[in-house]
Amino acid sequence: MSANRGNLFILSAPSGAGKSSLITALLKRHADMKVSVSHTTRQPRPGEENAVHYHFVTVDEFKALIDKNDFFEWAQVFENYYGTSKQAIETQLAHGIDVFLDIDWQGARQVRELAPDVQTIFIVPPSKAELESRLNNRGQDSAEVIASRMAKAQAETSHYDEYDYMIINDDFDIALSELETIVLSHRLKQSNQALKYQPLLTDLLKED
Amino acid sequence: MSANRGNLFILSAPSGAGKSSLITALLKRHADMKVSVSHTTRQPRPGEENAVHYHFVTVDEFKALIDKNDFFEWAQVFENYYGTSKQAIETQLAHGIDVFLDIDWQGARQVRELAPDVQTIFIVPPSKAELESRLNNRGQDSAEVIASRMAKAQAETSHYDEYDYMIINDDFDIALSELETIVLSHRLKQSNQALKYQPLLTDLLKED
Repeated sequence: MSANRGNLFILSAPSGAGKSSLITALLKRHADMKVSVSHTTRQPRPGEENAVHYHFVTVDEFKALIDKNDFFEWAQVFENYYGTSKQAIETQLAHGIDVFLDIDWQGARQVRELAPDVQTIFIVPPSKAELESRLNNRGQDSAEVIASRMAKAQAETSHYDEYDYMIINDDFDIALSELETIVLSHRLKQSNQALKYQPLLTDLLKED
Repeated sequence: MSANRGNLFILSAPSGAGKSSLITALLKRHADMKVSVSHTTRQPRPGEENAVHYHFVTVDEFKALIDKNDFFEWAQVFENYYGTSKQAIETQLAHGIDVFLDIDWQGARQVRELAPDVQTIFIVPPSKAELESRLNNRGQDSAEVIASRMAKAQAETSHYDEYDYMIINDDFDIALSELETIVLSHRLKQSNQALKYQPLLTDLLKED
């Protein structure tokens, strides 16, 4: 086990803000940053792998984990359950890995109560017009569905002030660099550095 | 006046940690970062300019500023007074400039009480041997003076755990990049971004 301890981050954004692309690009740069893999009772979609995209479990298995108090946060969305396992995250943090939770403002509230040290980051698109265009460009849904998605995006955005950091995803490379800056800055927190460099501090402070 | 508001930082370090070189290099990269210019009653040394290195004032002028409550923190070191003017800092922050206070742990304590939002950074050398070597390399002083400087450096270092961040100045370029990361990350704090991007947030949240 490394003396480095990772930091826990929550990334939230309205749909269309480009959060997934930013996370993917960041993880490509840093082997010691990972997205937490959630548990879910929904069926895998084509191409989704167990333990990579989700831990796919049955409703009974999920409920057993709830009873064991193993979830950081969990939610039921329509007939499916989604949850974040405390144990899985703790293992990664202990190995010096920065862990990202890709959850909404409601999940963020739950995690904040259990892990006050969590750092929360909110990503927003550069304008309402651009957001509308991004939601439209998916081109798979009716105008009604898009309008409903827009309303949902606005509802999510209205919680921006509950977050520690905010990134405007206008220029992708700048937004990526800003996300990286936030994450790297927390490795430099005194408590993390003191843990990592304890032998140095002992050396510096010892009397001759 | 910009809608950007700058952030206030304290940089402390034992003598020999390389703090001054790091600050100088950082300021060369960023026109919107400045070191606070202190007031002092001591005589200018060769090459020191008024309002650049210090605001050189008389003891009577300094005491008048104390009476006007114009100092963030002040101290008397032997027969000389040193102080940090609140008004000068506030003006720079309001113009979107990140301001650095180059002060010791005692000054840091005073400022923290008046400005709880201040971010504090402690810089340490990579080893005791390297610190000793750096203090020796100045080559101007007796062994006794160097030993006393070493004791002072250790006393300063013992306060590392009162700081928000810690940087190990082993490789200069890495240390510089870390200092930059910390400073830039605070521009991304939600409260700063919300101020800067208020029109965007209004746009995103307005109903059609």
